[in-house]
Amino acid sequence: MDLPVDSLLYVIGLGAVATMAAAGVLEAGRKPFDLFGMVVVALAASLGGGSLRDVLLDRPVFWVADQTYLIAALIAALLTFFLARLFILPVRLFLIPDAAGLALFTISGTKLALLSGAPWLVASFMGVITGVVGGILRDVLCNEEPLVFQGPLYATAAWLGALAFLGLAAWGIDANHAAIAAGIGIFVLRLIAIRWDIGLPRFRARPTRDT
Amino acid sequence: MDLPVDSLLYVIGLGAVATMAAAGVLEAGRKPFDLFGMVVVALAASLGGGSLRDVLLDRPVFWVADQTYLIAALIAALLTFFLARLFILPVRLFLIPDAAGLALFTISGTKLALLSGAPWLVASFMGVITGVVGGILRDVLCNEEPLVFQGPLYATAAWLGALAFLGLAAWGIDANHAAIAAGIGIFVLRLIAIRWDIGLPRFRARPTRDT
Amino acid sequence: MDLPVDSLLYVIGLGAVATMAAAGVLEAGRKPFDLFGMVVVALAASLGGGSLRDVLLDRPVFWVADQTYLIAALIAALLTFFLARLFILPVRLFLIPDAAGLALFTISGTKLALLSGAPWLVASFMGVITGVVGGILRDVLCNEEPLVFQGPLYATAAWLGALAFLGLAAWGIDANHAAIAAGIGIFVLRLIAIRWDIGLPRFRARPTRDT
Repeated sequence: MDLPVDSLLYVIGLGAVATMAAAGVLEAGRKPFDLFGMVVVALAASLGGGSLRDVLLDRPVFWVADQTYLIAALIAALLTFFLARLFILPVRLFLIPDAAGLALFTISGTKLALLSGAPWLVASFMGVITGVVGGILRDVLCNEEPLVFQGPLYATAAWLGALAFLGLAAWGIDANHAAIAAGIGIFVLRLIAIRWDIGLPRFRARPTRDT
Repeated sequence: MDLPVDSLLYVIGLGAVATMAAAGVLEAGRKPFDLFGMVVVALAASLGGGSLRDVLLDRPVFWVADQTYLIAALIAALLTFFLARLFILPVRLFLIPDAAGLALFTISGTKLALLSGAPWLVASFMGVITGVVGGILRDVLCNEEPLVFQGPLYATAAWLGALAFLGLAAWGIDANHAAIAAGIGIFVLRLIAIRWDIGLPRFRARPTRDT
Repeated sequence: MDLPVDSLLYVIGLGAVATMAAAGVLEAGRKPFDLFGMVVVALAASLGGGSLRDVLLDRPVFWVADQTYLIAALIAALLTFFLARLFILPVRLFLIPDAAGLALFTISGTKLALLSGAPWLVASFMGVITGVVGGILRDVLCNEEPLVFQGPLYATAAWLGALAFLGLAAWGIDANHAAIAAGIGIFVLRLIAIRWDIGLPRFRARPTRDT
């Protein structure tokens, strides 16, 4: 068991994709969609953010170059579909792996954007896009208002973590250490936000509508 | 009348684009959209799947490189718009050309992905994306739950056909023959599924929601 | 104060991005979204059209290459968010800068597409995409039927202007003069359409639905 760090990160990445796919099936399960609809929603939720990042950065799309990600998402979606017909799977079950996936997606997205030569603010947004766009696509396909626009800190945790990663690295900290510290920060902040229901301010604006 | 096969396929491809555009106008016509809204929905329905495929594979987008596709979609959308103000056009009218378009889009998408060096599972999904994403975009723009997630076999027929095409070609069958056989398979399977209302399993999941 | 024309256009471009972002926040404010949700809707509204154009043309995405656009959109979104909590901001306030932004986005999108070698009809649609897709994305994210599919002339004004620009340039008029004339045409046509509520024909189609 002498896995190098890169292999470990790869496995964690596959796990994050699988988690997002499973959570996508549970969301889609509240609609009268069939198995195919579930699978599409699961693929959009798990591969959508990274795909948009790669297209915007003009890199090869990650799951087109390496179909292991696609297979992981498919297996997770099918397993969840059949398990959910047998048992009641609470969405809560996925909150902790989802927070881990958010942290991993965000930091890896930020790093990839930096390597592609993106300026720092753009790089931090590429991290957020990687972590968050899948969930937005999932809700758009389900014809719902996106959940990540409403609940406890999600994208905000991701963005703060991406900025922390960039700050630490610019400050001279080793990039791997900075990535681990910032990733743990996202994970913990997200769990704290869920536990104590910490969200961003909102308003019901009252602009007059003259269409 | 000595058309080579490639010209024939090109004409069929234009016909498939036109059919999807016409069906898009009929769908959008159930909303209070104006002529421009119809045209956008029609273009998204007819060109969206191939565009996403080309962007994901980092190929030149097909209708940007050859505007004949754009012209075919526009003419079909405008014609349908004005005909539908005069006559009642039943959606049923489009089911058979739509099934033909699905078959053609799927097989050509799979082939293009293979030529771009995509691995086989990715290639089969590129076929499905080419055939199905237009219809999903159409329904998202109309603020409806996507129809292809619900009705009789549609994407499933496309995916089985794409896999059959890949299997036959890997087995040593001539690629053109494999394409024709698999395309006919998609077409027939789709029509059978409509006729006898064959769909995929679904479930109303009962996950507790703790947002 | 001896700004060259290019710098002037750049500043107008930033102003157009900021206007679209501000209008995005006001639209999103009618939903129970938090600050992050507003920011995402604002970014999609202000950067979405140009991003899709760049991806379809396989150019570097404009705000990834130059993050000034991203900063302008962010500042405008945050300012609008906090101002709208203090004052009632009527959407009407944004109609005139929005019309200016539409004109600028459309003509610059058409020009960029021509420079990328797109054929003329595609180039005119790239102009419309640059000007209009942001507003469509905004409404899809808010789970609403797109406004630009319904109101007074919007995309139509953009398309006529793009065609006028292409026609004038093909006729031998200097490209800069053609751009200015066509841009003013879009701006004025849009304001006239709002003032006298001029729209495109629409129909409530009555196709029978046999799903």
